[in-house]
Amino acid sequence: MKLSEIAALVNGSIKGDADLLITGVAGISNAAHGDITFLAGTKALKELKRSKASAVLVVRETEELEQAQVVVRNPQYAFAQLLEKFHPRIQSWNGTSKDAFVSENAVLDKDVTVYPFAFIGDGVRIGAGTVIYPGVFIGAGSSIGSNCTFYPNSTVREGITIGNNVILHAGAVIGADGFGYVFENGRHNKIPQVGGVIIEDDVEIGANTTIDRATTGNTVIGKGAKIDNLVQVGHNVRVGRHVILVAQTGIGGSSEIGDGVLIGGQVAVADHTKVEAGAMIGARAGLMGTVPKGIFSGAPAIPHRDWLKSCAVFAVLPELKKKVAELEEKLKRLSPDENEREK
Amino acid sequence: MKLSEIAALVNGSIKGDADLLITGVAGISNAAHGDITFLAGTKALKELKRSKASAVLVVRETEELEQAQVVVRNPQYAFAQLLEKFHPRIQSWNGTSKDAFVSENAVLDKDVTVYPFAFIGDGVRIGAGTVIYPGVFIGAGSSIGSNCTFYPNSTVREGITIGNNVILHAGAVIGADGFGYVFENGRHNKIPQVGGVIIEDDVEIGANTTIDRATTGNTVIGKGAKIDNLVQVGHNVRVGRHVILVAQTGIGGSSEIGDGVLIGGQVAVADHTKVEAGAMIGARAGLMGTVPKGIFSGAPAIPHRDWLKSCAVFAVLPELKKKVAELEEKLKRLSPDENEREK
Amino acid sequence: MKLSEIAALVNGSIKGDADLLITGVAGISNAAHGDITFLAGTKALKELKRSKASAVLVVRETEELEQAQVVVRNPQYAFAQLLEKFHPRIQSWNGTSKDAFVSENAVLDKDVTVYPFAFIGDGVRIGAGTVIYPGVFIGAGSSIGSNCTFYPNSTVREGITIGNNVILHAGAVIGADGFGYVFENGRHNKIPQVGGVIIEDDVEIGANTTIDRATTGNTVIGKGAKIDNLVQVGHNVRVGRHVILVAQTGIGGSSEIGDGVLIGGQVAVADHTKVEAGAMIGARAGLMGTVPKGIFSGAPAIPHRDWLKSCAVFAVLPELKKKVAELEEKLKRLSPDENEREK
Repeated sequence: MKLSEIAALVNGSIKGDADLLITGVAGISNAAHGDITFLAGTKALKELKRSKASAVLVVRETEELEQAQVVVRNPQYAFAQLLEKFHPRIQSWNGTSKDAFVSENAVLDKDVTVYPFAFIGDGVRIGAGTVIYPGVFIGAGSSIGSNCTFYPNSTVREGITIGNNVILHAGAVIGADGFGYVFENGRHNKIPQVGGVIIEDDVEIGANTTIDRATTGNTVIGKGAKIDNLVQVGHNVRVGRHVILVAQTGIGGSSEIGDGVLIGGQVAVADHTKVEAGAMIGARAGLMGTVPKGIFSGAPAIPHRDWLKSCAVFAVLPELKKKVAELEEKLKRLSPDENEREK
Repeated sequence: MKLSEIAALVNGSIKGDADLLITGVAGISNAAHGDITFLAGTKALKELKRSKASAVLVVRETEELEQAQVVVRNPQYAFAQLLEKFHPRIQSWNGTSKDAFVSENAVLDKDVTVYPFAFIGDGVRIGAGTVIYPGVFIGAGSSIGSNCTFYPNSTVREGITIGNNVILHAGAVIGADGFGYVFENGRHNKIPQVGGVIIEDDVEIGANTTIDRATTGNTVIGKGAKIDNLVQVGHNVRVGRHVILVAQTGIGGSSEIGDGVLIGGQVAVADHTKVEAGAMIGARAGLMGTVPKGIFSGAPAIPHRDWLKSCAVFAVLPELKKKVAELEEKLKRLSPDENEREK
Repeated sequence: MKLSEIAALVNGSIKGDADLLITGVAGISNAAHGDITFLAGTKALKELKRSKASAVLVVRETEELEQAQVVVRNPQYAFAQLLEKFHPRIQSWNGTSKDAFVSENAVLDKDVTVYPFAFIGDGVRIGAGTVIYPGVFIGAGSSIGSNCTFYPNSTVREGITIGNNVILHAGAVIGADGFGYVFENGRHNKIPQVGGVIIEDDVEIGANTTIDRATTGNTVIGKGAKIDNLVQVGHNVRVGRHVILVAQTGIGGSSEIGDGVLIGGQVAVADHTKVEAGAMIGARAGLMGTVPKGIFSGAPAIPHRDWLKSCAVFAVLPELKKKVAELEEKLKRLSPDENEREK
């Protein structure tokens, strides 16, 4: 593509040769001659100068660069658009493989792809254009929207509702039983988990992530939420719209995560926690109770800035303890009478 | 069901209309007209008053409720019993699918269900009534009890022993190699992991949880233990009877978890740790050495109450540090001579 | 095997009966009569005395033992060699099952084993002696070396490069999309993840571990690295040679882990972190920025010894706070004038 075509595609303006031929799209550190890359912030400017990229998406013209520039409002977004343009998804399979198992009671809309060794249970409905990879299981009565992609060995148990444009990465498990028992007669008795899971449109769920079904009612993942790998979402949780959950985070049962909340990696959210819209949670935080709008870190979580300051003191605690001991000693020398009185 | 029939089933006494027709069972927040729900403690009483539930399982009669009441010793246990009654498990498949692979040397007892694309290896034995979902792998020589349910894409490697009434959720992996190497000749040399795994009766293992096989001998999961999703159990670990392991917890190699121990989510148990019967471990704790009976939190773990108090001080550490600095300053002013001496 | 044959195999010298018949190899706590075990350090000496083992691999002769001894430079390494000798891997399947799906464009070298229900996509190449278990998916264009073992239900997405002698444990996912979005138009827009993953020779990857593909370029796992279960490796990460990552650790995008680094369990490595060669990271540490050679623990990580000391003070923080309050009180009594001045 010519640079002028690229500029038109991403709604940008060119600084440099409009006829320059762009043959690929790549991050700064991977870019080769002919590639276009992008500059987010100024931190990567030095790296960009050493980069072999022929052109760069920028938010404003930068004199110090040799590369041709395309000025756009959001360079990273333009970068994503170009990646999609240069790397159209190739579908190597079409239609339903004879080596898949599709119940005769399942209803598949047009252009559904089912690879070998996928299992589609009784009464399942699948919308147009959805792709089901090998080893995927879809249990009886589940309803899947259109244009979904379910990668290999992902599992959707019975009675689950999934919207449109949903991506399940490999090994994801939707609708396993919630973890609920009642102790009686000397053992943990299983509380049957008879509820479901509702996954709204445009959700992406990471590899080997697990979303449990509700005890009764539904576990809900809101529209546009993006969930990374190896995340655990417990029964009856409500994840709001456009929430981000980074890898290895766990959300305990019946918790609510407000719209647009960002939660870092390895965060632990206790049962029955309410994280309000506008909250941003640092990696490894531990949450319980109600978490308001704001930035929080630590376990138990406190405001992020306070946490940073407390961590700094934590690192010098032995010194602080020593100082306190010295102060005690000095005071004793200063006021021997007082010490006597205390005895 | 009439309320009188329900009361008989759960061994309870009725306050209200014995002929009331109950059409469903649901948690307080999900309950609709016609449903019976349950009240555990008094915290949910307010929510219950707003609930549409027609009846409620309670531990004692409550005057302030409009709903019909069934008084039972353990309302949550009665709730579990009713969920089971109202939601009998429906098995959509029967017998062994011709699209499964079952070794001719495998021995399947009566009423075993094997879905398409399951793989049953040489010499495997499976007890009566066990259900094997699609994508399940059972390796050569493994022995599976009766009335087990192995959900889709769970893996049981070779030479594993599993008791009766065991549930493996989707993607669980039993008997992968323990993580053992010896560094020699400039590289990590694999220590062959030739031991097995024994899972006793009534164990439930969560989705994508991994239980490693022993180096030699066996990793053991005791009778009635319940393990949540994404938990890691290392080689040669012994998990006691009726232990609870909440999601994303990891147990290092050769550790012992005593009978009845409760371990919260995202806990880390170091190699060769011994957690004694009667211990309760808070979420995110880090354990090593010997952990006695008691409640522990933090990493390294300390008694839970101490941890709570230390966390409260952690949050104000910068203030504490400032106070110490002020005290030093004041003391200097009070005793300039002493400060001289120190120099 | 006679003890003399064992000594020859592991290049050791015998103290005891060279004709002693050894019938098995086992850890100290599992060893039965006829077994040989090993002694690493002296901590297990007491346990060894109670052990039923008939012989023991030791680093130097120990007078206090009744068992026959084989003296070797590295007893644990010799133990690993003997386990391999006594437990040769048995391959129950040979060739390509007719119940597998192998693209006609895939190229399989000699002695490749493909179990039923495995899926080998277009243009895949697989080296000699590699074993592909049931439920494994290998996406279009991926290249797999020789003598690899891919356990059941592991997934290798399209365009991945895997070297020789690589082990993927059950449920491992290689090449799922990296977690990358750009917020625009009120939603998280997916940044297409068009890069790959390169896994070099002799790498072992644990059960249900996830290694994401790069945005552009490659995520790289260096030669001889060993990765435990349930680990997350983000997009564009570079894991060095002979690195150890223990279970449930997560490595954020674009991070670099230097050669030979050892990282304990449940560690969190933030995006764009650089961990330099020679670093050893304690379990549950949290890393960001640049981590030099040395031993680190805590989150944020500090030198391990400092962390231990700070943890010790953390456990007595309430006491420290009380002391500071007492000091303040005493000082007030000592210098009432000064306190006046402050007001």
